[in-house]
Amino acid sequence: MTTQIGIFGYGNLGRGVETAIRQNKDMALAAVFTRRKPETLQIATSGVPVLSADAVDDWTKKLDVLILCGGSATDLPVQTPALAKKFTLVDSFDTHAGIPAHFDAVDAAARESGHLAVISAGWDPGLFSILRTYGEAALPVGATHTFWGRGVSQGHSDAIRRIDGVLDARQYTVPISAALAAVRSGDAPALTARQKHTRVCFVVAAEDADKARIEREIVTMPNYFADYDTTVTFVSAETLRTEHSGMPHGDFVFRSGKTGISNEHTHLMEFALTLDSNPEFTSNLLVATARAAHRLFVEGAHGCKTLPDIPPAYLCVESGAWLRKNLL
Amino acid sequence: MTTQIGIFGYGNLGRGVETAIRQNKDMALAAVFTRRKPETLQIATSGVPVLSADAVDDWTKKLDVLILCGGSATDLPVQTPALAKKFTLVDSFDTHAGIPAHFDAVDAAARESGHLAVISAGWDPGLFSILRTYGEAALPVGATHTFWGRGVSQGHSDAIRRIDGVLDARQYTVPISAALAAVRSGDAPALTARQKHTRVCFVVAAEDADKARIEREIVTMPNYFADYDTTVTFVSAETLRTEHSGMPHGDFVFRSGKTGISNEHTHLMEFALTLDSNPEFTSNLLVATARAAHRLFVEGAHGCKTLPDIPPAYLCVESGAWLRKNLL
Repeated sequence: MTTQIGIFGYGNLGRGVETAIRQNKDMALAAVFTRRKPETLQIATSGVPVLSADAVDDWTKKLDVLILCGGSATDLPVQTPALAKKFTLVDSFDTHAGIPAHFDAVDAAARESGHLAVISAGWDPGLFSILRTYGEAALPVGATHTFWGRGVSQGHSDAIRRIDGVLDARQYTVPISAALAAVRSGDAPALTARQKHTRVCFVVAAEDADKARIEREIVTMPNYFADYDTTVTFVSAETLRTEHSGMPHGDFVFRSGKTGISNEHTHLMEFALTLDSNPEFTSNLLVATARAAHRLFVEGAHGCKTLPDIPPAYLCVESGAWLRKNLL
Repeated sequence: MTTQIGIFGYGNLGRGVETAIRQNKDMALAAVFTRRKPETLQIATSGVPVLSADAVDDWTKKLDVLILCGGSATDLPVQTPALAKKFTLVDSFDTHAGIPAHFDAVDAAARESGHLAVISAGWDPGLFSILRTYGEAALPVGATHTFWGRGVSQGHSDAIRRIDGVLDARQYTVPISAALAAVRSGDAPALTARQKHTRVCFVVAAEDADKARIEREIVTMPNYFADYDTTVTFVSAETLRTEHSGMPHGDFVFRSGKTGISNEHTHLMEFALTLDSNPEFTSNLLVATARAAHRLFVEGAHGCKTLPDIPPAYLCVESGAWLRKNLL
């Protein structure tokens, strides 16, 4: 009996989830829901219905887990609490500063209805959050540093696209090399957001749009850009397509710390990702998290959880006995 | 109310656990148990009793968690199942091939008595097992490779020391550089244990010992040495002390995998450790695991678990709300 998955929203992430499901023998795609006209969508899996977002209510009994593939800026804050009243679900909400409020809203909705929701289940937040948690636990006397990029941030690109007059956009997060060197030396330096990364934006504006206003709205956007040095370059749709269509990413989390009776020993934990496709890797994590969400729900769990609340083994298709024999 | 910890066995690992407890404000060392004469032990924490191993039975009501610091070759296979009948406990059993049998023995004992036992809670098995589990979950189409060293393996050094006629020993695990390069290239090559690492042993033998027999017993030892190219060098106690007393370690886990409709995108997850002191880092993980074990036991869990069965957040002193605000 495969786990029946619904995809809610069919952009880069939705397509990635569809592809990821094919790699997991215990999962099956049951339906795709879209706010566009369903007949305009061409999906990769034959025989799977593409339906209007409004039709999702008819599927409460037919889906084990709904995977929400909307953006964090405006979609998920509304969609996740609303849908958590009806479904076991997973989202990839990635505005770090907004997580506590999003958690509370989703937790209230899911508890009331007896469903289970896992939020922020990508690689950061998500997999990197897990690494930061283990780092904190393993080396209580220490410092955590996360660097993103150089790479495209879907969440930030999405936030720019929602600005009036913007047709398309791509945002690169770029680590500042001096900061990187300081952390690698084991110095555990105190670094502000601005000292660690710059944000580089390529934007396609509508012909009649006020570019100065768009640039101002980007660089002052709270949570996303206001705390960073941000550069905005306006380009043609053609340039964006030819020069900025790939979505590679390279990122890492460090935990450095001390042990010993006089803190005389230094240790460094480093986790690095090198990704050809950021949305596809995120999607793979969403599907693994959907497996865990379904298992937890079947066990009777409800309310909101994040990846640090979930045993690693729940994400993996294999049994506990297999893990002990092969991975432990 | 601090969590009351007992240490069972006071070698490198026991001393490391004692030191680690000082870094965790919610933990306190309650007692140390030893098979040596208690009066011969000098511990670093004042006011804590050092008792004979036989006295541990009197402490079932006074300890929240017992941390077992014996060796995997002969101590833990006997001690862990026996003590799991009386205590919530954590061990660092590290003979990979023996984990399924050790798990079954400990699980039976802990279930019968209603206690909780977490086995194999160091960094490998342990932290690395977790990383391998996430790797398998995130990239189902892929390959996992673990490399150890160059560094001292406590478990293997311990196994040599138990051979008749051996006074002391130190074993280094050394990755073979050609194998390392093949994995980093993303080729996901198939590699045997022998192709990945060599094992380099420095042994102090008793004056009248048969060195040829000792060497033969080492290189043919199942699980520990038989599957590797192993070199044995006999040295004086003085040489071992001056040239081989440090316990640094550098190690990593890779998961490489493919995503995309035609598996056209490649991803690499890499987790690397650089440790000044292998036993102190292992000890820190044992103490974090003891926190998780106590929380799980209080919630009503029993039987045997390993780290992939435990939510990451349970290892960390901070609350869920703190983790969501600061680490997620």
